[in-house]
Amino acid sequence: MGEFDLIARYFHRAATRSPLGVGDDCALLQPGPGMQLAVSSDMLVEGRHFLSTVDPAALGHKALAVNLSDLAACGAAPLAFTLALSLPAVDERWLEGFAKGLFALADRARCELVGGDTTRGPLSICITVFGEVPAGEALLRSGAREGDDIWVSGHLGDARLSLEAFRGKVSLPQDVFEQARRRMERPDPRVELGVALRGVATAAIDVSDGLMGDLSHLLRASAVGARLEAEPLAMLLAAGGDLAPLRRLELVLAGGDDYELVFTAPAGHREAVLDAGLRSDTDVTRVGRVEAAAGVRVVDGSGQAIHGDFASFDHFG
Amino acid sequence: MGEFDLIARYFHRAATRSPLGVGDDCALLQPGPGMQLAVSSDMLVEGRHFLSTVDPAALGHKALAVNLSDLAACGAAPLAFTLALSLPAVDERWLEGFAKGLFALADRARCELVGGDTTRGPLSICITVFGEVPAGEALLRSGAREGDDIWVSGHLGDARLSLEAFRGKVSLPQDVFEQARRRMERPDPRVELGVALRGVATAAIDVSDGLMGDLSHLLRASAVGARLEAEPLAMLLAAGGDLAPLRRLELVLAGGDDYELVFTAPAGHREAVLDAGLRSDTDVTRVGRVEAAAGVRVVDGSGQAIHGDFASFDHFG
Repeated sequence: MGEFDLIARYFHRAATRSPLGVGDDCALLQPGPGMQLAVSSDMLVEGRHFLSTVDPAALGHKALAVNLSDLAACGAAPLAFTLALSLPAVDERWLEGFAKGLFALADRARCELVGGDTTRGPLSICITVFGEVPAGEALLRSGAREGDDIWVSGHLGDARLSLEAFRGKVSLPQDVFEQARRRMERPDPRVELGVALRGVATAAIDVSDGLMGDLSHLLRASAVGARLEAEPLAMLLAAGGDLAPLRRLELVLAGGDDYELVFTAPAGHREAVLDAGLRSDTDVTRVGRVEAAAGVRVVDGSGQAIHGDFASFDHFG
Repeated sequence: MGEFDLIARYFHRAATRSPLGVGDDCALLQPGPGMQLAVSSDMLVEGRHFLSTVDPAALGHKALAVNLSDLAACGAAPLAFTLALSLPAVDERWLEGFAKGLFALADRARCELVGGDTTRGPLSICITVFGEVPAGEALLRSGAREGDDIWVSGHLGDARLSLEAFRGKVSLPQDVFEQARRRMERPDPRVELGVALRGVATAAIDVSDGLMGDLSHLLRASAVGARLEAEPLAMLLAAGGDLAPLRRLELVLAGGDDYELVFTAPAGHREAVLDAGLRSDTDVTRVGRVEAAAGVRVVDGSGQAIHGDFASFDHFG
């Protein structure tokens, strides 16, 4: 099967929103009047971001999900994506599964495949995603101000817990493991929440490398620091009820692969944040406050500092 | 060195044209009023598209050039690009050379790096490029009509000739080899020509997999066929003067990696095409005519059909 037949067979679908479908030299996109285009690229590499044994449908889902999560962090509504795929061989069962997982999420997010590239090589997937956001309303990392609340969406640490269980470093009951594994393999990008937070949040970032590391990027971009409360944080781990509190906290803070949003908002916007959570059917939890002093301080219920291994997972670490 | 320091050191430059520079969750782009955004992604993989011994500056140039060539084929003016890079290790000399070659072309094309991703893994480079074109004026593959002239830009076949010399299948004088090698390693995307052909050409595609194969995509998209003249075609090979005429023709038709434009235009636009070539300082050569019957016929000066190994290079062939 030639490259072009392959693309046509698994990835050619009728375009419904872009002026031109897959198959010309370029795709054409036209953001609405007054809209800016938000763009993000992520590359997933076998052995680094996923194992060769992963379900291809889960991989198709995740490859798009991590990109949609970047749109969510900017408050952008998904429009379209390109897919560049390097494959060691033409494996039709693999392609069918991958396309199924990819398009199921793409359809749900109303995000259309508009172009890309296919080549032979080590398995890797590079997606570039496009969304639109009214000019000037994108959520940036640089907008947090002293006194703002710090919020996170959904759950944190479960993806990392699943990875630790895979590695045999922790033992989990089967149902707990399955729940954690699902969060690692099928993250749910918080696109609706991101859009609902336009005009409500002052800054946002998505949690891909761990809350501590990603929040630190946001704080540095805003030239502020933060105080985080250990008790609400430790509750964010959905699975792993038997773990010691400090271990739970480490998983939540340093876990990675969560694809939740961490965002800041003025205390006067608490009702609006909760309302955005309700409208997007997403849990939101207040976990701390922006302070003037640089750095992140984690404190217990009585305000005492807690120290632990909260460093971020780094792909070149 | 951590991933983020690495990105900052080699790839963080001040943004001058996009509303937001590198470093947030998304880049923001805003095409001008009435403009559409043209988007293309290409992935280059070590061992498939380049050898590990390639000069990193040449690789940085080529990785962007092949994407700019897609914009050229649509008549879009470059705006910005994202870069996703998978690297087996942090090699500072390599990164410095790669960035130098990449940004030299980016600056020349006024195409700004606005975001991307870096990960550890087998060496591969995925660039997504963005350009703008007035709505409705993009050059598509589907606009060729019976009777249109067929034109190509620059030279064809030299990149493939260089590859054959690398493989020891042909022997070339040193200066001829260097000239051909430069065309393989440093293709010059025909961006200015593409823009100048708006409203002049009826269809266009860039030649990446070989003239015969890429022209066939254009013809199929336009539901037409073509007759090509062997004599002007054979002259398109810049190097390789000693080769037999049929071998020259094979290199021109099936070569690949040329990154020239092949385009169609009505006979009444001949002056306009030559003027577009002059304005963009690019040679253009008329090589045939669009016909109603499907397929491509190559003929000699007396109209006799010529048969040869003109099939296209296919990455999955």
